[in-house]
Amino acid sequence: MAETILNSINSPADLRQISAEELPQLAAELRRFIIEIVATKEGHLGASLGVVELTIALHYVFNTPNDLLVWDVGHQAYGHKILTGRRDVFHTNRQLNGISGFPKRSESKYDTFGVGHSSTAISAALGMAIASNLKGETEKQHIAVVGDASIASGMAFEGLNHAGVTDANLLIVLNDNAIGIDPSVGALKNYLTKARVGYKPKQDNIIEALNFKYFGPVDGHDLEGLIKAFEDLKKIKGPKFLHVITRKGKGLKKAEEDQVKYHAPGKFVPDTGELLPYDSKDLSLKFQDVFGLTLVELAEKNKNIIGITPAMPTGSSLKYMMDAFPERAFDVGIAEQHAVTLAAGMATQGFSVYCAIYSTFLQRAYDQVIHDVALQDLPVIFCLDRAGLVGEDGATHHGIFDIAYLRCIPNMIIFAPLDEVDLRNMLYTAQKVDLPHPLAIRYPRGRGFRKEWKLPFEQLDFGRGRRLKAGSKMAVLSLGSVGMNVSLALEGLSEEKEIAHYDMRFAKPLDELLLHDIFKKYERIVTVEDGAVSGGFGSAILEFAQRNDYFVPVEIFGIPDRFIDHGKVIELQEIAGIDVKTLKERFSTLLKKN
Amino acid sequence: MAETILNSINSPADLRQISAEELPQLAAELRRFIIEIVATKEGHLGASLGVVELTIALHYVFNTPNDLLVWDVGHQAYGHKILTGRRDVFHTNRQLNGISGFPKRSESKYDTFGVGHSSTAISAALGMAIASNLKGETEKQHIAVVGDASIASGMAFEGLNHAGVTDANLLIVLNDNAIGIDPSVGALKNYLTKARVGYKPKQDNIIEALNFKYFGPVDGHDLEGLIKAFEDLKKIKGPKFLHVITRKGKGLKKAEEDQVKYHAPGKFVPDTGELLPYDSKDLSLKFQDVFGLTLVELAEKNKNIIGITPAMPTGSSLKYMMDAFPERAFDVGIAEQHAVTLAAGMATQGFSVYCAIYSTFLQRAYDQVIHDVALQDLPVIFCLDRAGLVGEDGATHHGIFDIAYLRCIPNMIIFAPLDEVDLRNMLYTAQKVDLPHPLAIRYPRGRGFRKEWKLPFEQLDFGRGRRLKAGSKMAVLSLGSVGMNVSLALEGLSEEKEIAHYDMRFAKPLDELLLHDIFKKYERIVTVEDGAVSGGFGSAILEFAQRNDYFVPVEIFGIPDRFIDHGKVIELQEIAGIDVKTLKERFSTLLKKN
Repeated sequence: MAETILNSINSPADLRQISAEELPQLAAELRRFIIEIVATKEGHLGASLGVVELTIALHYVFNTPNDLLVWDVGHQAYGHKILTGRRDVFHTNRQLNGISGFPKRSESKYDTFGVGHSSTAISAALGMAIASNLKGETEKQHIAVVGDASIASGMAFEGLNHAGVTDANLLIVLNDNAIGIDPSVGALKNYLTKARVGYKPKQDNIIEALNFKYFGPVDGHDLEGLIKAFEDLKKIKGPKFLHVITRKGKGLKKAEEDQVKYHAPGKFVPDTGELLPYDSKDLSLKFQDVFGLTLVELAEKNKNIIGITPAMPTGSSLKYMMDAFPERAFDVGIAEQHAVTLAAGMATQGFSVYCAIYSTFLQRAYDQVIHDVALQDLPVIFCLDRAGLVGEDGATHHGIFDIAYLRCIPNMIIFAPLDEVDLRNMLYTAQKVDLPHPLAIRYPRGRGFRKEWKLPFEQLDFGRGRRLKAGSKMAVLSLGSVGMNVSLALEGLSEEKEIAHYDMRFAKPLDELLLHDIFKKYERIVTVEDGAVSGGFGSAILEFAQRNDYFVPVEIFGIPDRFIDHGKVIELQEIAGIDVKTLKERFSTLLKKN
Repeated sequence: MAETILNSINSPADLRQISAEELPQLAAELRRFIIEIVATKEGHLGASLGVVELTIALHYVFNTPNDLLVWDVGHQAYGHKILTGRRDVFHTNRQLNGISGFPKRSESKYDTFGVGHSSTAISAALGMAIASNLKGETEKQHIAVVGDASIASGMAFEGLNHAGVTDANLLIVLNDNAIGIDPSVGALKNYLTKARVGYKPKQDNIIEALNFKYFGPVDGHDLEGLIKAFEDLKKIKGPKFLHVITRKGKGLKKAEEDQVKYHAPGKFVPDTGELLPYDSKDLSLKFQDVFGLTLVELAEKNKNIIGITPAMPTGSSLKYMMDAFPERAFDVGIAEQHAVTLAAGMATQGFSVYCAIYSTFLQRAYDQVIHDVALQDLPVIFCLDRAGLVGEDGATHHGIFDIAYLRCIPNMIIFAPLDEVDLRNMLYTAQKVDLPHPLAIRYPRGRGFRKEWKLPFEQLDFGRGRRLKAGSKMAVLSLGSVGMNVSLALEGLSEEKEIAHYDMRFAKPLDELLLHDIFKKYERIVTVEDGAVSGGFGSAILEFAQRNDYFVPVEIFGIPDRFIDHGKVIELQEIAGIDVKTLKERFSTLLKKN
């Protein structure tokens, strides 16, 4: 490896030995390092490029890890990881047994708080700052770096609202690049944008109204200016706020120009940013696109359809509907709570509202699902993308709790499509019939299985499963797309004839008619789900058996009761024992037990 | 009944027939009516007294129910209920089969959105307003009445942030009485208070920064002024905001003077407001007070203890610690999300943080429990008051989902004390030992069972249950205070000797050693919990049996899979079949089955 400044830095203490004149060179090297590795290993690119100077300035001025630095969301923290002793392992980013794509406490003392979901940093840093006050450590600095999309979330507001009445030594750095994954939205964003373009908010600035000392905006790519600002801010006690303007993708022309695509671009040519083509003609569509395109198709005919996404137009593919029917498709920003209750309000007026939220993010709106939707039995349609193990994003993003946390709510219908056609047909059914209850449709991240997905619509029956394969001794009951693993596992298995396979489709209500048949017929039952086994689908099957006095042995396959880290989906499924290969072995073993 | 104006009003249409001159008389009558009924039937008093004029003015000016009026929280909506056809049934308020203490869609077309938890009204009303736009109903008015404590919650901010960039015909009425249940807190409250005292926020008002047209503040007890304001606002399109100053408890001197006590004062003398004494010397302490007083006792010796409540100092009894150790006890306002992550931040710095949140409100912070606490395995102590059926507050407030929604989260410890001493000992243990994981302690609303609760502390073992009573044939496994019902049910039962009773104490981790003994010994097992049976404690027992190939019949007693309305706790327990009398019958029946 060439002699570089970056190579000499194994910790922020090393960084602080460098003269200020050398820092622009370091910034260039760090930027290049990130680009080269992400170009081949993939990951979040644009956000980390945007904060190269900010990252250097923070660690240069503040005495990390004694001063406590919290990155909100954390996909912008690659530079932070590289400068805090993880340069040589950075190429393992997001891989199984490699470093996490997000700050993680168990990984480094410089990662003061684990992140992944947005808008937690202010609360966490405030907690640390209050703790320092109680310990009498009044010189200690606490810094939360928060993006402009994140700060508009309700949770961030709650943190600001509390911090403003404390004397906590808290610095909030607003990393304002006017974009989250998609462009930021909302009234606060418009207000902040005015500040960007020279409208200088003074006395009654919205941030100062919350009792913060407001500074900025400053150029987030001007190292000298940033360092001076932080040196000044270090001397000021109490809650303070620095508004920093950055450019997402900074330093890679294509990434600056198409910030949405270069948020996490996949593989590309490091020098040019040109995306590497992959052969997509043999690939199935992503589930999210089946959702997005089907919704447009339905909305063309049904004026009663509304779509909502909290800040994921691209990720959920609701963007298709936003383009086609902008007046009926809403990106409400990082505001899952609002999204759900907004949907409930619309549903009271007779609309078919498709509320598209990743499974892991619906956790943010759990109370609203119970209190505003299910309790009033409003027929909101929740489209839960990224259900199951999501792969490289890891433990913060797996959508594995939804079956358990939704199943305990009265009135909920929980459906999981086996494949794209199932998803499509349920989206159709939900607006075709008089939907009796709220409906959650959970489907996985990534591509489907079929070349032909756009088949004529078929209406599905609520609460009805189906037999996919006959068998004599043992019945495998799967829920959702993990059923494809089951089908593949059964193919060519020597005991194939002894094993029946049922696609149960609904975690709630269960198909009790079908279950009575199954429990009467087979010697052993196996349930397979890509969700937490504690309280999940298998547990619902046990409850059915208990209610009906069946004593057939049941095995439950799913995500064990611990957090699963990052890696390829297939690797993580193997850890959980629900990949094709492991399922084959487990089925065989069970049959031998019979 | 005397001839009054109030008696002539059976709907807002009747109200709108009355001359403006008669309205003050109506206000006096309505206020008196509320006082007289709440004095004997109990309920929320202060909030409804504070909005008598506001309620009249809203229904007088707006064309309800065609115009859509949403009350936030809804405990202030008694006047609304009385004026919208429910005067003659208002005496059944909060009673079994009577009207709900909160607006409820199934009860009246004037109740456009069911409420109970705070800060939902803006999102719901915005949803309705957008729906009206899509229908072309551009003249329709949509009004959300929101208190100053509620509007500081993150969810309300999310609603404002979205509404501000729409052209929705939405009027937000800020009912600013500077108090929720306890006095409002936070930076926004300080800002709004400046507006109250004459500091007139103009151009850069925080509300106008969010793109609302801001009006006020106006006197919320001046009918003429309110009516004029609403008439004017009706003509203004788009999002608009009226700041109204009211006095909680208005019209009853004692209620105005002690607003916290008169939030829901119990029985009192209507003319004077004097609270009716009840003989408390034979009553046990409330669980919340055992929590609050014990925490002070512990905090006196352990400087590492911090307490947090989101807006429930009185309700949770954290007020004792706030009085004794104000620097270590925090009311963060209606901000459950922030409360949990703040606790997590403090826990990273080595503090023992007791985060006191009602079971039903922890639903608001579900993601934070998973993502910020459990995933990082931080030893935060959640004190979940109001777990189980809470009685008169009804479906919105029952704390019946927590076992299911917490049980699926890895690392969580879930403990439910049988009685006050158990609660006290777990509070002690949580800070005495090196707490291995996050801990949730769920305990019920209301009074405990023992005269002597302040016994010397005893350290409890995590994950250990205990046998309370021997028996030969059947084992009853109870979790938490509902075990007292089990004990009483077994007392004097003719089959008493055949039934053993185990207090399992932990829903997670289960006491597997004890369970192996139990499953080997008894012919039948019954589980009893005051939580949802879908995915709850009984379900965990089934999972244990499944994992270990036990085929003993198990019966699960708990809250069935539907929402339970309001009524006395004992009445609601009877509906669920977990009151003493019903348990007796169910146990007997089961033994006969053996």
